Amino acid sequence: MFRKWHLFTPGPVPVAPEVLLAGARPTPHHRLPEFSAVLTEIREDLKKLFQTERPVFFFASSGTGAMEAAVANLFSPGERVLVVCGGKFGERWGEIAEAYGLFPLYLHVPWGEAVSPETVERALAQDPEIKAVLLQAHETSTGVKHPVKEIAQVAHRAGALVVVDAISALGVYPLPMDAWELDVVVAGSQKSLALPPGLSFLALSERAWERVETSRSPRYYFDLRREWKAYQKETTAYTPAVSLLLSLRESLRLVRELGLPRLFAHYALVSRACREGVSALGLEIFPQVPCEALTVVKLPEGLDGGALTKLLRRRYGVVMAGGQGKLKGKVVRITHMGYQSPLEVVLALSALELGLSELGWPVKMGAGVARALEIIRDKAEEVYA
Amino acid sequence: MFRKWHLFTPGPVPVAPEVLLAGARPTPHHRLPEFSAVLTEIREDLKKLFQTERPVFFFASSGTGAMEAAVANLFSPGERVLVVCGGKFGERWGEIAEAYGLFPLYLHVPWGEAVSPETVERALAQDPEIKAVLLQAHETSTGVKHPVKEIAQVAHRAGALVVVDAISALGVYPLPMDAWELDVVVAGSQKSLALPPGLSFLALSERAWERVETSRSPRYYFDLRREWKAYQKETTAYTPAVSLLLSLRESLRLVRELGLPRLFAHYALVSRACREGVSALGLEIFPQVPCEALTVVKLPEGLDGGALTKLLRRRYGVVMAGGQGKLKGKVVRITHMGYQSPLEVVLALSALELGLSELGWPVKMGAGVARALEIIRDKAEEVYA
Repeated sequence: MFRKWHLFTPGPVPVAPEVLLAGARPTPHHRLPEFSAVLTEIREDLKKLFQTERPVFFFASSGTGAMEAAVANLFSPGERVLVVCGGKFGERWGEIAEAYGLFPLYLHVPWGEAVSPETVERALAQDPEIKAVLLQAHETSTGVKHPVKEIAQVAHRAGALVVVDAISALGVYPLPMDAWELDVVVAGSQKSLALPPGLSFLALSERAWERVETSRSPRYYFDLRREWKAYQKETTAYTPAVSLLLSLRESLRLVRELGLPRLFAHYALVSRACREGVSALGLEIFPQVPCEALTVVKLPEGLDGGALTKLLRRRYGVVMAGGQGKLKGKVVRITHMGYQSPLEVVLALSALELGLSELGWPVKMGAGVARALEIIRDKAEEVYA
Repeated sequence: MFRKWHLFTPGPVPVAPEVLLAGARPTPHHRLPEFSAVLTEIREDLKKLFQTERPVFFFASSGTGAMEAAVANLFSPGERVLVVCGGKFGERWGEIAEAYGLFPLYLHVPWGEAVSPETVERALAQDPEIKAVLLQAHETSTGVKHPVKEIAQVAHRAGALVVVDAISALGVYPLPMDAWELDVVVAGSQKSLALPPGLSFLALSERAWERVETSRSPRYYFDLRREWKAYQKETTAYTPAVSLLLSLRESLRLVRELGLPRLFAHYALVSRACREGVSALGLEIFPQVPCEALTVVKLPEGLDGGALTKLLRRRYGVVMAGGQGKLKGKVVRITHMGYQSPLEVVLALSALELGLSELGWPVKMGAGVARALEIIRDKAEEVYA
């Protein structure tokens, strides 16, 4: 009855109290040895999360900052990059590339469809000057998952790098950077790491790092050469977001204790439960190849998505995301990321059923929840042992 | 996936972050004028919550402490009191009365049944020496609600006081102290006030206060004469639980802004949704006259209640209470009190369905949730406008 929020948005996500409390401690000075120890612990845990032996950098910025850092550090004005564009975040890669004077070639994919490695291969073959493929692990605006592993292989065969925006993907499903030979992986704090917004992450393969040394793009705050120097001295180039890093240490500790396989299994289970629940309600999943981070639901023709999210927010404190760009009003996005228990997906589905019903769409009340509960029951012992 | 608790226990209950944060502030000194202003604000709000013009006292103690305060301040050794006993907390009134050398007469009621005013009337008629009726607004061990208003009338006609343990009742459903002429009302912090445990509350009618002056029972910490003197000087007799009081001020502010009628309407709706959901699963509600604070579910014959609560806790982080005393293993208690949103009752029902199913009891998955959602949908606009 008291206003209580249930966040099902693709960032911010619910944050664990112990993580918030870690950031609420008195601010230590960031140049003291005690804080260097914190940085070292964080950096080791980040490598495990990225599944890489390479250093992982972080910035006080949104995820977009780390996307910009990738572009500014790797490329020079006039260079050609292939941008996979099937949603709002694909467009963002293009905008950043253009802002830095690159020459982005757009590989347009219908919204909700995954790009095929063959299409990427053909595009690269047509233009041997392309230096890199820029894409999302999944498009958060449509929920579609791209075949990152296969695209990396295709890119490398063509002599191009692969630069992956994994902002809302890292920690949700497998994206092993070294094993899949990903050249750049970008992540953010307010996603699977279940932190407040404000931190971004970035790791580069050796091959990608070679370009950092020669890139002629202007950069200062996001200059990875400066960060690498500081990294080796167990510090940061500029003042870091200390309280967020203290929270990050706690969040990474929770991930380490749990282990990536169990975390991935959880997301796989709740996202499947959500999708099957949505289908049981007679609704369609928007993306052709759905990712595990969020479920994007195609709303029935004539139903106003804005009215739905507003009703759920005001009446039940349930916050879901609507559609972006051309999907505005047409989909609702239910996120599984962050500090959520297995049953919170049921709460989200309940809210969806209530909202649809209250807006006059015929819902067999409980049908979606029932299906989701069956899915969870059959796997719970294995996943939450 | 990270361990997240969903508390559905009849104390502690979930606490709002703003309430917790209020108590996390630096501790002010309790004898300064600034803190007196806090006490005055709290005391005025408590009167509104108790629906009384009488002063409301608080102690740093569990609810049991305020029950003891009632007995120690009102009665003298050898005096006769009528104890309504149909569960664990009725028994507690008797134990306290015995500890103070009173002569408690037990009005035994089968567990799960409400006492009838006629039965109380007959008991009082048989023994004109009875000074008071001691009872619960509802028995939290069985979930049954007693007819407090009618019993007060019967008691007064017989010249006896009525002493009500409303520890988990006050703020859940109407118990207007002055309008119903209740002589003593006892409350606790970790119930509808949605605070951590540690505070108890107590208000006395004028009639009850007369006995405070003459009672010959020993008392010191719980001596209301000392507290009343301090109250008039805008302070407390002994060091109060300062951080809890800062939280209390915030909690009372939330209740004041919401208003008691809306709070009562919320509890009425979610408790009804829960009961009907439970019935739709083919299970019985244990109490004959259920209260709105918690739903006590009779488990199917042969199903181990202990195994059920353990499974829900370990696998889903859902904490429900089992049965107490003779109900151990036979019921599960789902509490609606505290910082819960309307849809958390659905989460509780989902957990119940999963747990029953996993323990091999045939459940039509989603049936309970479906019924609860229908109930909520039909009233949501009115209750959560």
